[in-house]
Amino acid sequence: MKKHNFYAGPAILPQEVLEKAKAELTSLNGIGLSVMEISHRSKDFDAIITSAEENFKKLLNIPDNYHVLFLQGGASQQFGMIPMNLLKGGTADYVNTGAWAKKAIKEAKLFGNVNVVASSEDKNFSYIPKEYNFTDDCEYVHITSNETIGGVQFNDFPDTGDIPLIADMSSDIMSKKLDISNFGLIYAGAQKNIGPSGVTLVIIRDDLVKNSADGITTMLSYKTHAEKKSLYNTPPSFGIYIIKLVTDWLIELGGLDEIEKINAEKAGLLYDKFDSGDFYNGTANKEDRSKMNVTFRLPSEELEKKFIEEATAAGFIGLKGHRSVGGCRASIYNALPLESVQELVKFMDEFEKNN
Amino acid sequence: MKKHNFYAGPAILPQEVLEKAKAELTSLNGIGLSVMEISHRSKDFDAIITSAEENFKKLLNIPDNYHVLFLQGGASQQFGMIPMNLLKGGTADYVNTGAWAKKAIKEAKLFGNVNVVASSEDKNFSYIPKEYNFTDDCEYVHITSNETIGGVQFNDFPDTGDIPLIADMSSDIMSKKLDISNFGLIYAGAQKNIGPSGVTLVIIRDDLVKNSADGITTMLSYKTHAEKKSLYNTPPSFGIYIIKLVTDWLIELGGLDEIEKINAEKAGLLYDKFDSGDFYNGTANKEDRSKMNVTFRLPSEELEKKFIEEATAAGFIGLKGHRSVGGCRASIYNALPLESVQELVKFMDEFEKNN
Repeated sequence: MKKHNFYAGPAILPQEVLEKAKAELTSLNGIGLSVMEISHRSKDFDAIITSAEENFKKLLNIPDNYHVLFLQGGASQQFGMIPMNLLKGGTADYVNTGAWAKKAIKEAKLFGNVNVVASSEDKNFSYIPKEYNFTDDCEYVHITSNETIGGVQFNDFPDTGDIPLIADMSSDIMSKKLDISNFGLIYAGAQKNIGPSGVTLVIIRDDLVKNSADGITTMLSYKTHAEKKSLYNTPPSFGIYIIKLVTDWLIELGGLDEIEKINAEKAGLLYDKFDSGDFYNGTANKEDRSKMNVTFRLPSEELEKKFIEEATAAGFIGLKGHRSVGGCRASIYNALPLESVQELVKFMDEFEKNN
Repeated sequence: MKKHNFYAGPAILPQEVLEKAKAELTSLNGIGLSVMEISHRSKDFDAIITSAEENFKKLLNIPDNYHVLFLQGGASQQFGMIPMNLLKGGTADYVNTGAWAKKAIKEAKLFGNVNVVASSEDKNFSYIPKEYNFTDDCEYVHITSNETIGGVQFNDFPDTGDIPLIADMSSDIMSKKLDISNFGLIYAGAQKNIGPSGVTLVIIRDDLVKNSADGITTMLSYKTHAEKKSLYNTPPSFGIYIIKLVTDWLIELGGLDEIEKINAEKAGLLYDKFDSGDFYNGTANKEDRSKMNVTFRLPSEELEKKFIEEATAAGFIGLKGHRSVGGCRASIYNALPLESVQELVKFMDEFEKNN
């Protein structure tokens, strides 16, 4: 039976990438060794990490004054590393849009003053706040561009003027066009749109690196990783290799212009379904609906349970909502084919008819 | 041409492990999804991480009052995390046996007083110090059980009494029998003996977890990872999967008793070669020779260059010494077959005859 993978992360990878990785798992480029078995300072690995970095620069049109880094620890590690490096006892503004933003806020409080300048907690994180009063002398503004649990996404980013804007883009990086120059720092765990878990992408403007704190451990300093180009110590080399293949795939597909269209079409199929009846109800405010994580409820929890069970049996995997909120969720990242969403909608039609 | 992989890390993996990973790369256990594509909270991944943990407990006979954790960031991250959690402004004793010990010492100084209680720097890190005067009230004693650059290894561990002994075992973990109860904490980057880069094994006694510092970021606290059993956030799941396969392989082979014998035989072939002539000269003090990283010099740097070139051309990969010390190095970790060392010795005989 064909599986349709709607997991929230780790999530589906392009089939072509998996096939390529499988074909050369025991012998990278015919060298007779696996990519997992070669020195991170070998020319074969250097070609991979350089190419991965170049692919990001090309796809996101990253200006020269930014560093593209491959780190470890996921977004959760960045929640602490960002204030450790950049807050320095000062004030930072955070926008609270859900579970992930809250985690970032919690860690930042260890390193300075945190102003939560806007929050959607009043309506169970079902929308993106639109009005902000940023603190004049704050070190940075932090947002979470997409919330996997609440299923909301920033369509327009706040204008922070000269204040560096920092975004956790773990769940929507590379899903649409982006003007990097609006940001001071962007970070993303790889395991949704760009690769397997175990690699964290950090795109950081050079002045933030230069102004980052001293007196912190070598591995937690952005200076270390910017200076050593992600090779201060042994990087997660297999993950970086997969990221190289995923970004190759995305370039081949037509880049962010093309994937943005496909993602809009996929999300549209599901949201149109919600809007054309009252059996499936989206939980997010219409204008803030995520194109990556589509969250919805059925008329009863009993029906939700039945829906998830029957969907799973029919090959639709990972449709259970996050354990903290319940309900249903279809994560429809870059690598998920349009066909999987079309099939899901057919299944939803059928289920609605029968229940 | 057959390749013999002597890289210092990332290093050779068992061929059986790579073949198995290849066979199921696009479909783990026939589920139709790659291990990289499934939720870290799914039953399929739970079976993997549980089995990996159980394998370590079995192979190392780990007592119940220890946690087996799979973290990220390599040993370099632990250099900072250990004093951050356990030094707490107090004093720690460090033994300085080479480049890796020095890095650990540097990070510890950020968090308290560091006494270097013994050092082999006087003889270019060619031996393991045998006499120590530990500080009475120190929080822990830190050693590096094997130095990949100097090619020295602890055969007997210092008796620290009630003081917790902490060891960086990145390059010799699982290479021989070990009495875990002598240690408070053992850590190891995976990429030498247990898996690919991107996973760090930490074995930590429960009282150290309980006494670790508060007020540090969630991701940098041992308490977090012990409490959440390595699943506070998304772990490096593919790496943990490979570690599960490598430890399966080691159990199948006969465990640490068996691998210790094989490793002794492999190292013996090379050291006997050094001792039976004067063309190849081991750099480490005889009684402290590493059974993992065999470091040696030839009569001239010119000959070393020629040796490495011709060896590489003949399929012997990774024999160049670390860039900081020069010379030659054969890393002969668990997964390297005896045959590769036998072939290398033949090549060395031949090269000696011709030069």
